[in-house]
Amino acid sequence: MTVRIPRDKENDYSVEMAKNRREFVKEMTGSELEHVGQYSFDPGMTAGNVENFMGVAQVPIGLAGPVTINGEHAKGDFYVPMATTEGTLVASYNRGMRLISESGGVTVSVVDDVMQRAPVFIFENARDAREFGEWIDENFEGIKAAAETTTKSGKLRNIEKYAAARMLYLRFNFTTGDAAGQNMVGKATFVACEWIKANNKKMVRYVLSGSMDTDKKHSAINTLHSRGKRVIAEVTVPAEKLKSLMGVTPEQMYRHRAISQVGSFMAGAVNTGAHSANGITAVFMATGQDCANVAESSAAVTYADLTQDGDYYLSITIPSLICASFGGGTGLATQKECLEVMGCHGNGKARKLAEIIGATVLAGELSLSSAVLAGDWVTSHDALGRNR
Amino acid sequence: MTVRIPRDKENDYSVEMAKNRREFVKEMTGSELEHVGQYSFDPGMTAGNVENFMGVAQVPIGLAGPVTINGEHAKGDFYVPMATTEGTLVASYNRGMRLISESGGVTVSVVDDVMQRAPVFIFENARDAREFGEWIDENFEGIKAAAETTTKSGKLRNIEKYAAARMLYLRFNFTTGDAAGQNMVGKATFVACEWIKANNKKMVRYVLSGSMDTDKKHSAINTLHSRGKRVIAEVTVPAEKLKSLMGVTPEQMYRHRAISQVGSFMAGAVNTGAHSANGITAVFMATGQDCANVAESSAAVTYADLTQDGDYYLSITIPSLICASFGGGTGLATQKECLEVMGCHGNGKARKLAEIIGATVLAGELSLSSAVLAGDWVTSHDALGRNR
Amino acid sequence: MTVRIPRDKENDYSVEMAKNRREFVKEMTGSELEHVGQYSFDPGMTAGNVENFMGVAQVPIGLAGPVTINGEHAKGDFYVPMATTEGTLVASYNRGMRLISESGGVTVSVVDDVMQRAPVFIFENARDAREFGEWIDENFEGIKAAAETTTKSGKLRNIEKYAAARMLYLRFNFTTGDAAGQNMVGKATFVACEWIKANNKKMVRYVLSGSMDTDKKHSAINTLHSRGKRVIAEVTVPAEKLKSLMGVTPEQMYRHRAISQVGSFMAGAVNTGAHSANGITAVFMATGQDCANVAESSAAVTYADLTQDGDYYLSITIPSLICASFGGGTGLATQKECLEVMGCHGNGKARKLAEIIGATVLAGELSLSSAVLAGDWVTSHDALGRNR
Amino acid sequence: MTVRIPRDKENDYSVEMAKNRREFVKEMTGSELEHVGQYSFDPGMTAGNVENFMGVAQVPIGLAGPVTINGEHAKGDFYVPMATTEGTLVASYNRGMRLISESGGVTVSVVDDVMQRAPVFIFENARDAREFGEWIDENFEGIKAAAETTTKSGKLRNIEKYAAARMLYLRFNFTTGDAAGQNMVGKATFVACEWIKANNKKMVRYVLSGSMDTDKKHSAINTLHSRGKRVIAEVTVPAEKLKSLMGVTPEQMYRHRAISQVGSFMAGAVNTGAHSANGITAVFMATGQDCANVAESSAAVTYADLTQDGDYYLSITIPSLICASFGGGTGLATQKECLEVMGCHGNGKARKLAEIIGATVLAGELSLSSAVLAGDWVTSHDALGRNR
Repeated sequence: MTVRIPRDKENDYSVEMAKNRREFVKEMTGSELEHVGQYSFDPGMTAGNVENFMGVAQVPIGLAGPVTINGEHAKGDFYVPMATTEGTLVASYNRGMRLISESGGVTVSVVDDVMQRAPVFIFENARDAREFGEWIDENFEGIKAAAETTTKSGKLRNIEKYAAARMLYLRFNFTTGDAAGQNMVGKATFVACEWIKANNKKMVRYVLSGSMDTDKKHSAINTLHSRGKRVIAEVTVPAEKLKSLMGVTPEQMYRHRAISQVGSFMAGAVNTGAHSANGITAVFMATGQDCANVAESSAAVTYADLTQDGDYYLSITIPSLICASFGGGTGLATQKECLEVMGCHGNGKARKLAEIIGATVLAGELSLSSAVLAGDWVTSHDALGRNR
Repeated sequence: MTVRIPRDKENDYSVEMAKNRREFVKEMTGSELEHVGQYSFDPGMTAGNVENFMGVAQVPIGLAGPVTINGEHAKGDFYVPMATTEGTLVASYNRGMRLISESGGVTVSVVDDVMQRAPVFIFENARDAREFGEWIDENFEGIKAAAETTTKSGKLRNIEKYAAARMLYLRFNFTTGDAAGQNMVGKATFVACEWIKANNKKMVRYVLSGSMDTDKKHSAINTLHSRGKRVIAEVTVPAEKLKSLMGVTPEQMYRHRAISQVGSFMAGAVNTGAHSANGITAVFMATGQDCANVAESSAAVTYADLTQDGDYYLSITIPSLICASFGGGTGLATQKECLEVMGCHGNGKARKLAEIIGATVLAGELSLSSAVLAGDWVTSHDALGRNR
Repeated sequence: MTVRIPRDKENDYSVEMAKNRREFVKEMTGSELEHVGQYSFDPGMTAGNVENFMGVAQVPIGLAGPVTINGEHAKGDFYVPMATTEGTLVASYNRGMRLISESGGVTVSVVDDVMQRAPVFIFENARDAREFGEWIDENFEGIKAAAETTTKSGKLRNIEKYAAARMLYLRFNFTTGDAAGQNMVGKATFVACEWIKANNKKMVRYVLSGSMDTDKKHSAINTLHSRGKRVIAEVTVPAEKLKSLMGVTPEQMYRHRAISQVGSFMAGAVNTGAHSANGITAVFMATGQDCANVAESSAAVTYADLTQDGDYYLSITIPSLICASFGGGTGLATQKECLEVMGCHGNGKARKLAEIIGATVLAGELSLSSAVLAGDWVTSHDALGRNR
Repeated sequence: MTVRIPRDKENDYSVEMAKNRREFVKEMTGSELEHVGQYSFDPGMTAGNVENFMGVAQVPIGLAGPVTINGEHAKGDFYVPMATTEGTLVASYNRGMRLISESGGVTVSVVDDVMQRAPVFIFENARDAREFGEWIDENFEGIKAAAETTTKSGKLRNIEKYAAARMLYLRFNFTTGDAAGQNMVGKATFVACEWIKANNKKMVRYVLSGSMDTDKKHSAINTLHSRGKRVIAEVTVPAEKLKSLMGVTPEQMYRHRAISQVGSFMAGAVNTGAHSANGITAVFMATGQDCANVAESSAAVTYADLTQDGDYYLSITIPSLICASFGGGTGLATQKECLEVMGCHGNGKARKLAEIIGATVLAGELSLSSAVLAGDWVTSHDALGRNR
């Protein structure tokens, strides 16, 4: 007979209930959860973040930096806490940060900022669906008003429309302030859809997701139209810095890119860079972001050029960086501290965080791509990583 | 002037150095790292997992289950520790696990298991590159022998070849035992390439990655040829269970899929399911997997059918699940405990873990896709999640 | 020494010059071009369609139909001339047309209609590029006015903007009346870009194509945002008609689609249907369309459903059908005749032609997909096709 | 009442029946098919190429060349007949051919050559499907023998396997001599599948296409694993030739590519070059190839480099060029003549034709990409094309 995990309707987020569940685990599986039970905060904090709380994963945090950032929100030198279990990762990002800082810093810009929910409306035929598209334009203000009744910080910016068969797939784009906003926009879109249902006579029915929001999934539409923040990091590395710190020339880096772009294209890769997921995940994990969004946030577009002086311009465009300085896991004990290290906790800080992540990612691109070319990639893993 | 993070050449992974770094952070940024400093293990454990260690992220773990699994390695009822900061996630997976268990369990199979490094070889022209492809076939045994000098558990299985311009892109496929194996195969491939360089006269040069390994990046080639484990989870849910527990019928679920597949296709999504990244990330984080691999592991292919009795068959194929029971972060304090809860720590357990993750993911697919259709998706987030 | 093809500055499109060139071919290669020289029109007609005219390809035309169309422009029964050299093609489409007609006809709708040219603007950095995006919005009327000085029928509808690195990629969307419009919009966009260059102080330079127009190339952006006409054809086939004419049931067709969608997704196919390129190409070739646009026009999204009565609803969405009733090759001798057969030559007929092509394509989808399931696919090729 | 197109069971491919059908068209639609009726060959020739033959499309052919080719099959200077209705196309290719010839010629290589049919086998569950994969390997000789009973020139080379859900998708790869081979491999695969059905006890059923052949559709799998011929064309253009003939420098060309690759990637284009479809279609139409295969053949991967002397190396890889020198439309009147002009008709000539097409395509890439940069793109269309 199945034995259910202990719960308490009154006071489920207590030290005692967490302990009960660890004991339950021991009883059912024979495994002690000694370290899992070592957390330093009131479990009540986790209500809204997890169910059946029983303890914590203790994920090592290494410190990287400083990295000099010329952002619009992040200005100056930053130290970046990175949670990871992958040897050489922090060292590699650190190396890139040093190169960036010695090159005068990285310019980072958030060029778009938007979160989606994408319902689908079903009609008798394609013409009704087409007509509905016009109706949406005409009734945008009503839809927007309905959506915004559910949220203070969410604003409906625009609605994209995609026609196929007798369906019209909509993509509601919201600005969401400093929260990542997935739930906020889900609720707002739901109310908007109900308003549409009440006001449009032609529609047969709707479903709240027609799979064009591509939540927790990479998609071409995200790369084109952004999901979360579209962040662009740029740096110009002087030739002599690249040579002395990384052991490669701008010319070598630039020429090899043409070869790697061909490989990337044939493979059908969704990221033309090296490993942005590494840096993004490590900062996400340290700062209470939803790491499942690495699925979307790991897409990237890189671009390089040589300057007239023979220096190396490198940029990375992250089209779907989903991060928040407020809500979600950002208020938890260690997560909040890590955000504070970067001055990124609370209202008005989400874009600053996005800029720091963009800077971090670019540092990692410089570091890994030069290591691959310089031939010290394997040896550094040997020295610093577990020999897996 | 830039101030460098404190390091100690002799004894860098000590309680004291970690403390020094936290104090350094305080000095530089004014932020206290009180909770980050609360870890329950010897920092020496983290050597090989992180550099500049200064403490831990405490990520809440919720317990889900039991889920009944008919695997080849995982057999019986399992409780699954999920580390997350996203409200409703554990509850949602739990709900799916109950449905699966009441339906007689999920069948999970690992159908492929392979890790890659993909060098590129450059020639004078396309014909030399073509000839080199034949040379590779003829010299496979020599290449394999060279590669395998570097590792006990890694075995070179085969080499894929992709021609473009005057390059030949190779993709070395290794079996790697119970480790994820990215570093292992990097080293082995490097030695193999050096052997090739010494023995082949036509090649001009090679680079250890031609970007067709697509490490930390989703790609079409991963979906086709797998990266890590290719895991297929299948369940047949009786119509009445689906109706009573989820409030939807097999027919509704099946018919809506045709609509969501169109949305998915137009969006260019790399996953035709609902949100496999959520379950994968939560188990990865709890068990010391490399969460940056969510970039690859979040791809999925779903397929559903109706049985002759009108029940609902649902399956998910995860083509690139990268997980290990050994190496990487799997030996860390809480991570090892969480693996042990599932009987998945150490040698011979990686496929068992993969099966449990596959089962977990399918539970989440059932739960979310039925919630979207039943209309209780938004309301459950309201009840359990932070109102973001 | 290289011998140049004969040309005549004064009168290059003459019977004599065509003959001179055929004789030149004979001299250079020994090959007679007897049939190539058998054309029935004045070569002067081909000025603007071809250079170095020397004769014609005689491509066999078969007649298919009638197909009953419930379009907004094409209403009634149509016979469709199809130019092809592939045995069974006309027969297969014909079979599908009969099924459609006996099912009451196909509903076809043109739901979008737009042609693009996509320049890229380059800036000092990403922020300047972002600011330029706002400038574009503010100056849309000026840009539009400049663009439209070059054309009577082309109208600039909107400009999409895509940011990456320090570039802003624009996609100018024009309506182009009854012409396909690729050259028209190229010229209009050029003039618009020159206007921008004269009026915007921040831009460094621009290039007329940044490769986001994806002319003569399939792309995800075309499937999302259309290129040419977005055409949706829908039919509901009564179960007994499907059974008696095709030998399959709606249930069989519907269920197999789930399997083929999985194959399609894994393969990374850009068309979830069977073979729309066949029908499109055959009508394009007969009617003087640019067959190179099959690259774009061959993308498609199919969707099926079962009605409450158990009948089979099938639709195909062609997101990038590029066809014209005016300009290009539409005025040539046989091409014009074939357009006239369908009442599609000249002004005001492009959408009608698009509807007929949509209807034709859907006929082919029904025919081939049922043949594959019914198992008579190979045998029909044996009977009708060359045994290649 | 529907009136059926006239047919004659005894003698359907006659001058009289063709005339009957044209008269039928006139009766039904009022349109004369005067020019369509002007063909110069015996309609009996078209049996196996078309049904309901009623005449021909007369598509203008222009002559381009000479282009100097250093192929393995095509060696020397070639004149290329191009059938098109697009003004400037022949002139543009001609310009590129001149540049190539003055640069010493283009090296073209066919690096793979294979045609597919891709059935899907359905099982009780994923494990049976996995086991079936092993069975396929063990029984390859039996399967091959069965397949090859149906064809003299087709040889089963290998079988790819792709697992999803409880299906195993196979991709049968055949070499097909000088025919394109789609029908040949369909028939051979059908017989092979029937053999499997008779000999394998575990399979539930199979369908002859599981949509992974992606016939008449572009797909990622085609780019990776080829369909038809994988053709690579390479040229090194001296800097001064590029400058004097095209008005651009190697440096300009090379640097702009980095920008266009970003646009291409964001757009999700399946071809990183300029317009290979134009050249391919024009030669296909002239030589009786199946133009619907432009869907597949229009994919391409371009790569450029600068030599140490500052010259411009450019290559294009066409992964799925489907062309034949035998079978299909290659024996028709004008089509055969055009093949003969290039010495490409009949047995043993398919790869030669593929090389000439590869050379032609590369000429077009050079011509268009330099025109875009040099700024004379719009103006040349104005001078030579119809002002659409």
